[in-house]
Amino acid sequence: MTTSRADLPVVVHRAGPASMAAQIAAQVRDAVTSGVLGTGERLPSTRDLAATLGVSRTVVTTAYAQLFAEGWLEGRHGSGTYVADVAPGLPAPAAPPLATAQPPAPAAPQGLSEQANGDLVDLRPGIPWAAGIEPAMWRRAWRHAGKCQPSSWPDPHGLPELRAELARYLRRSRGLNVTPAHVLVTRGVSSGLVLLAAALVRPGDRVGVEEPGYPSAREVLRRAGAQVVPCRVDAHGIVPGELPADLRLLYTTPAHQYPLGGRLPVGRRQALTAWARATGAVVVEDDYDSEFRYDVGPLPALYSMDPDVIVYLGTASKTLTPALGTGWLVASPALSARLAGMRAGLADRVPEPVQHALLALLTSGDLERHIRRMRLEYARRRAAIVDALTRPGVPGTFRVLGDTAGMHVVLELAGHPAQRVVADAAERGVTVFPLDRYFAGPPAIDGLILGYGAASLPKVRRGASVLRDLLARIPV
Amino acid sequence: MTTSRADLPVVVHRAGPASMAAQIAAQVRDAVTSGVLGTGERLPSTRDLAATLGVSRTVVTTAYAQLFAEGWLEGRHGSGTYVADVAPGLPAPAAPPLATAQPPAPAAPQGLSEQANGDLVDLRPGIPWAAGIEPAMWRRAWRHAGKCQPSSWPDPHGLPELRAELARYLRRSRGLNVTPAHVLVTRGVSSGLVLLAAALVRPGDRVGVEEPGYPSAREVLRRAGAQVVPCRVDAHGIVPGELPADLRLLYTTPAHQYPLGGRLPVGRRQALTAWARATGAVVVEDDYDSEFRYDVGPLPALYSMDPDVIVYLGTASKTLTPALGTGWLVASPALSARLAGMRAGLADRVPEPVQHALLALLTSGDLERHIRRMRLEYARRRAAIVDALTRPGVPGTFRVLGDTAGMHVVLELAGHPAQRVVADAAERGVTVFPLDRYFAGPPAIDGLILGYGAASLPKVRRGASVLRDLLARIPV
Repeated sequence: MTTSRADLPVVVHRAGPASMAAQIAAQVRDAVTSGVLGTGERLPSTRDLAATLGVSRTVVTTAYAQLFAEGWLEGRHGSGTYVADVAPGLPAPAAPPLATAQPPAPAAPQGLSEQANGDLVDLRPGIPWAAGIEPAMWRRAWRHAGKCQPSSWPDPHGLPELRAELARYLRRSRGLNVTPAHVLVTRGVSSGLVLLAAALVRPGDRVGVEEPGYPSAREVLRRAGAQVVPCRVDAHGIVPGELPADLRLLYTTPAHQYPLGGRLPVGRRQALTAWARATGAVVVEDDYDSEFRYDVGPLPALYSMDPDVIVYLGTASKTLTPALGTGWLVASPALSARLAGMRAGLADRVPEPVQHALLALLTSGDLERHIRRMRLEYARRRAAIVDALTRPGVPGTFRVLGDTAGMHVVLELAGHPAQRVVADAAERGVTVFPLDRYFAGPPAIDGLILGYGAASLPKVRRGASVLRDLLARIPV
Repeated sequence: MTTSRADLPVVVHRAGPASMAAQIAAQVRDAVTSGVLGTGERLPSTRDLAATLGVSRTVVTTAYAQLFAEGWLEGRHGSGTYVADVAPGLPAPAAPPLATAQPPAPAAPQGLSEQANGDLVDLRPGIPWAAGIEPAMWRRAWRHAGKCQPSSWPDPHGLPELRAELARYLRRSRGLNVTPAHVLVTRGVSSGLVLLAAALVRPGDRVGVEEPGYPSAREVLRRAGAQVVPCRVDAHGIVPGELPADLRLLYTTPAHQYPLGGRLPVGRRQALTAWARATGAVVVEDDYDSEFRYDVGPLPALYSMDPDVIVYLGTASKTLTPALGTGWLVASPALSARLAGMRAGLADRVPEPVQHALLALLTSGDLERHIRRMRLEYARRRAAIVDALTRPGVPGTFRVLGDTAGMHVVLELAGHPAQRVVADAAERGVTVFPLDRYFAGPPAIDGLILGYGAASLPKVRRGASVLRDLLARIPV
């Protein structure tokens, strides 16, 4: 059933076009979340709404594009714009939407009573939404795995049929032009890095890791005997012009820098591959959450620009669950074969039933359906956090960093001690991490990393509200 | 249906009691294999058979005990001795039993035609019988796994309920007195060793590995930066009196030395733990195939003698399949907790569904039933190889080494080049490995390692027959 809503409950305060588009988008989000706008309801055309609000049509088009990308709206060919279906299997929002006034948190020892209620808000990063995995989908995958007898001598590259399916998946989702011979099934990003370090890095070799960057990457490389060199990133990601010429390998996250959230622009990508060509370094591209962008599509993988000098790592740990312990590595067939030959000596083996289950999730389309549902869910949670932390009352020096993507935001605290906020939030039942653990050296940014994978939308809202209150009280 | 066989088709040539017992056992085996004795048939009592054959009752009792242990016979309480049931799901013997004369292999390029027939005999070691895994058991385990939603934040120790079940399993099967806090779920023996090395070994530390010994253990320790010291073993296992005083860690296989097959006697076990106490070394006990003994029960695990200085490693890779990629580590609760804390930085994670599947296999009794069936199957294959290689015609200098246990035998070639036999066997379609790869230094024994996990009983027979022919032609 589709009904058209000419009376969209939106008002716009005069401002620049971007700000007005954001106002419209925020109010449509709130209207959907609070039930004022229902699934399948048709929105006014951009022309009509622009006329009603007295703004330019570009402002409305921009707002709609954002809401499309976040998954709130869907288009039907030739027939307009509609409120998208709420993803099945996800818990419906139980808390009142943020837009309505919320009672202030009681001053009593809230943290304790929340704990007693099992009501903690977990904003730790890197944890996908386990409850979002549809039980029927999960059962199907493992039922399939149980039907496959184990091989006597498992192929150290991974199951051939899974490698073929991964090559197809990477072609359609990331534009990689690869064959099964390029693909190794791994136990995830870190295990891929262990393997690469064993093959490419000799004790004492200098290897680069983004600063700030993924702590496990640093640890894996350090354990392989490498000397880890922190390589500065800014809001756009790694800075190629500052890279030393003597690195054996560079670990980088061009799609969505971890943790700061920048997307490496094309010019830097060219400079990065040129640097690798010139110095003989291998660039390891960790594409850990390219599946989750909520504004524009991701750029093609760096790997496509120069497969000779880049090794690509992907994982199901973010799209699905780290409990699966599976990922993939893409390199030249020669390097892939060499890595496969080293696995026995590294105790590096992906259980075959896990590979069969992943194969079933890919061939059935279940994994991609799951990713689409999660994209919508995470976009909502992200919007809830960002909305709360950019409202009037929060000092403007506390900035939200990073692209509209992924499963976390970074909040820059501009000199205010992060540990203090972490402790205050914990007292109110909200678990957040400081940013300093992502730095190998002295932190260049004080801040928090706020993950929204582990907590439901209502809990994310509550956590964001607690943080907003804490921040609003800080004298700046 | 049970019928009694008074007319057991056995003759005994006069010899010592042990030899006469072995003659009886061999003929009963052949009678069962060839169908002369059927499942459920009742054997004469030891008293009757001893009288019939004119031997002492001890001779017959010894023969029966051996056949019991190997799984050929079963007793029913108070009602005698019967031919055991052939394990369901195992292929029935298709080839004529070895006891009957076999036509010599044609001189034509046999290897090629066998290859064309997909008829190679794979006697590589370390591969359990994948086809022996009952499809229904496997399906049940993974169906259960599929019903368990993944956790958001998997416990790095392993699933608590699996650790509790493993503690019970290790208590009843190996007599270990442990709690769940002692147990870590691992990805297998090698991954347990990676973890221990990361926790206990600093670069340059000296660590001991049996010589000959498990090549992956050497490689894992070497990659951790250790200096690997070969420690001599003899027919009984490691020689504690020769161990240096400056080892940080010693990797050993006391239940069934890998690959030579000795079982460490009690005196040496005491000497070994005393050495560890005196020097401060940690002894790592790899109990990789203690489940498969075909004569007498295994000794209790070394771990039980002195839990303070011993870490115990077990695996499902031999009892079930390496495709599962799962094992367990038993250490003090403090060390286990410390190891668990290091796993993230080592990319060391056991997929949760795999843990749920193993839990289902343990709680249902399916794993132990499977082990019992495989014990019978491997005992038969072992007997087939040992029979073939100890018959008249094979030079007496070619000795079969090792206890009646496990999934392989070592054939000592006493100076004859192993590579030559490997090549000749390969030409006839039989894959065997030389023993030299188990030595870090110059091989002290020339020989072959013959695994019987990967090939069916008929194929094992054929492979053993090919080897016997090859050996019989060697001038000594």
